[in-house]
Amino acid sequence: MTSAPLYTFNRSEELMSRARQVIPSGIYGAKNPANFVPGSYPVFLTTGEGCRIRDVDGNEYIDFLCSFGPIVLGHRHPKVEEAALAQASRCDSLNLPSEKWVELAELLVSITPVADWAAFAKSGSDVTSGALRMARAHTGREKVIAASGSYHGWHDWCSPIPTGIPAAERALVATFPYNDLEALKRVAAENKGQVAAVILTPFRHDFFRDEELPAPGFLEGVRALCDQEGIVLVLDDVRAGFRLDLGGSWEPYGVRPDLILYSKAVANGYPLAVALGREELRRAAESVYFSATYWSAAVPMAAAVATINTLREEGGIEQMRAMGQRFRDGIEQQASSLGLAITQSGPPAIPFMTFVGDTGFRRIHLFCGECARRGVFLHPFHNWFLMTAHKERDIDQALAVTEEAFKAVKAQFGG
Amino acid sequence: MTSAPLYTFNRSEELMSRARQVIPSGIYGAKNPANFVPGSYPVFLTTGEGCRIRDVDGNEYIDFLCSFGPIVLGHRHPKVEEAALAQASRCDSLNLPSEKWVELAELLVSITPVADWAAFAKSGSDVTSGALRMARAHTGREKVIAASGSYHGWHDWCSPIPTGIPAAERALVATFPYNDLEALKRVAAENKGQVAAVILTPFRHDFFRDEELPAPGFLEGVRALCDQEGIVLVLDDVRAGFRLDLGGSWEPYGVRPDLILYSKAVANGYPLAVALGREELRRAAESVYFSATYWSAAVPMAAAVATINTLREEGGIEQMRAMGQRFRDGIEQQASSLGLAITQSGPPAIPFMTFVGDTGFRRIHLFCGECARRGVFLHPFHNWFLMTAHKERDIDQALAVTEEAFKAVKAQFGG
Repeated sequence: MTSAPLYTFNRSEELMSRARQVIPSGIYGAKNPANFVPGSYPVFLTTGEGCRIRDVDGNEYIDFLCSFGPIVLGHRHPKVEEAALAQASRCDSLNLPSEKWVELAELLVSITPVADWAAFAKSGSDVTSGALRMARAHTGREKVIAASGSYHGWHDWCSPIPTGIPAAERALVATFPYNDLEALKRVAAENKGQVAAVILTPFRHDFFRDEELPAPGFLEGVRALCDQEGIVLVLDDVRAGFRLDLGGSWEPYGVRPDLILYSKAVANGYPLAVALGREELRRAAESVYFSATYWSAAVPMAAAVATINTLREEGGIEQMRAMGQRFRDGIEQQASSLGLAITQSGPPAIPFMTFVGDTGFRRIHLFCGECARRGVFLHPFHNWFLMTAHKERDIDQALAVTEEAFKAVKAQFGG
Repeated sequence: MTSAPLYTFNRSEELMSRARQVIPSGIYGAKNPANFVPGSYPVFLTTGEGCRIRDVDGNEYIDFLCSFGPIVLGHRHPKVEEAALAQASRCDSLNLPSEKWVELAELLVSITPVADWAAFAKSGSDVTSGALRMARAHTGREKVIAASGSYHGWHDWCSPIPTGIPAAERALVATFPYNDLEALKRVAAENKGQVAAVILTPFRHDFFRDEELPAPGFLEGVRALCDQEGIVLVLDDVRAGFRLDLGGSWEPYGVRPDLILYSKAVANGYPLAVALGREELRRAAESVYFSATYWSAAVPMAAAVATINTLREEGGIEQMRAMGQRFRDGIEQQASSLGLAITQSGPPAIPFMTFVGDTGFRRIHLFCGECARRGVFLHPFHNWFLMTAHKERDIDQALAVTEEAFKAVKAQFGG
């Protein structure tokens, strides 16, 4: 048996040369090729269909990054595309909202136990910053507590890179280590009476490290502290939302925040973000300025209605869990057979993997690069995602590739 | 001759009752019905085609608000829709950019004299805040000077309503009155060596007041000051861009900024924003974090290419100027005939009108409300916009309505 030839990326490289002339870094931010494995990944993509994407050189991949989260049903999912197209034939962004504005808010409020109202925006950063504004208006306080290393977007208060951001813009944010309730209590005590909000991701899904689910008692302790101190508890469900529980990613834990923030998977790739809140916060939400030109656009809202209904009707959450578990089990078995020490972490639908003792992330880079060159798109330091378009045969095909990639790691680094 | 019956808004009101249950204020922000003329305007719209929009009660309007700016060619313009649809059949937002990322950057750089590079985002606020970050990284300074009352978006540093925003977040912004060069020089002197950027709209287009074109020598003086003090000059062309000059709205004045910011009209309604910069700022742009999930989406970029090419090929700028002038001339003649004192201001393609001595804005509210109830969509305190879909017969039909509205003002308030 001969292996298929490994992918090459000539057209990607040509385009990147042109991009470098007219765009900062050619591609700036998360999609910069330096964030993948240079030479082993494509740089430009051209199509998506189901769980398959294709690059500008014609190479095909099974996609486990899902456009960094948004693609929850599959690329160009027929029901979502049909809804979006039908809406686009009438209107998208007009002087005033469309009926979809009301329809989507009603749907979201109906499926979200904690929510009495919904407010729409365009991106995750819009709603994380908007939530802080609402919490500050509600409490009359200015400080915010977040977990160190958690990603909440690119705005000044939370950008992971501080270049060009005045220190004063970040001075109101205090941090503690995720899952360390005692540390959070200390930070809250040091800022007693001044804390407007605690903002948390549903579990720890920071870059460059294993995921951590909430430690027993952590979420309950956070909720109790916020209740006691009059702090608004904000769940930043931008990355994880709509993959673990349609009522919000803390529903399985029985802990309810005051605000839930969504973007990404809510509209299967169409640009939309949502803040959902309790009745108590409605007046604060009404009192702040939160407005932009495209926020009432109807096409992403039509896509969101179709996405949510499809996830519900087709048991999407369980499908992603089951296929994520199948992928995880296969990987575990492969690594074990080869004597490679790995850690798999996070929920099966939002998995991640590291190699134990992987100094400089060299093993995971080699592993992901070898996967990419054989048609499986993972990410070396950002969590992976399942979508409902992943079926057993896709997972098994992907596992045939990870097997080869594990062998390459073993060949280079030993067992 | 009997007049057509005035529009009613029953379905809009029904939807608004539902919206109030599940959305803060029903509709929050700029599109809240309180910002129009309650009872005389629709609340929800349903279709757009060319320069015509239709509300949920079936009433049709000639649109002079253009979705608050984005619609520059006309709603659902065939060339833009065709390009967007063709792109959507391949991909929109994937793990990596598409070829459109490069194609659009090359097109924008080629038509913009000042630009050596382009960076993309999703909304006007993204690029105004991003520009400040780039300017701060470039200069190593923290302060910013803006014109008092100018709108630069909803982020903390510039939101027009301060509720929920810590004072510290706004302390780095100093202001001066637009067109007052001496005042700007004083503010710059008071902050000597600390100012990273001066950010200005191309002309004064603030809410609730007449527009003001740049005073003779003002822009040249700003440019000279920025050169002398090493300050980055940022042109916030988000609202006016692509209606006055395809090279940037200061090109007719012969003054060139260091960064030009676009959104709105760049993609005829598809969500996109652009920062264009000089070579000197490329390294700063590369050094800051500026990244979000949907920013590389290909459909808005395909729409932008089609929008810009159509504006060029069809002489869109001159078309909008000419039709704006026709509208202005007609209005002038009507007001004059009735002995009503009005002020028309701004460029013909981005016009505005006020009544002289209009305490409490009662005349302009009545005027705009009477226009809306007869099928012409203006705004009582935000500037208006032309689009290339406005043809002579549309302008003349709109003028038949403004005539009626002027008569109503005369009847209620006298000459």
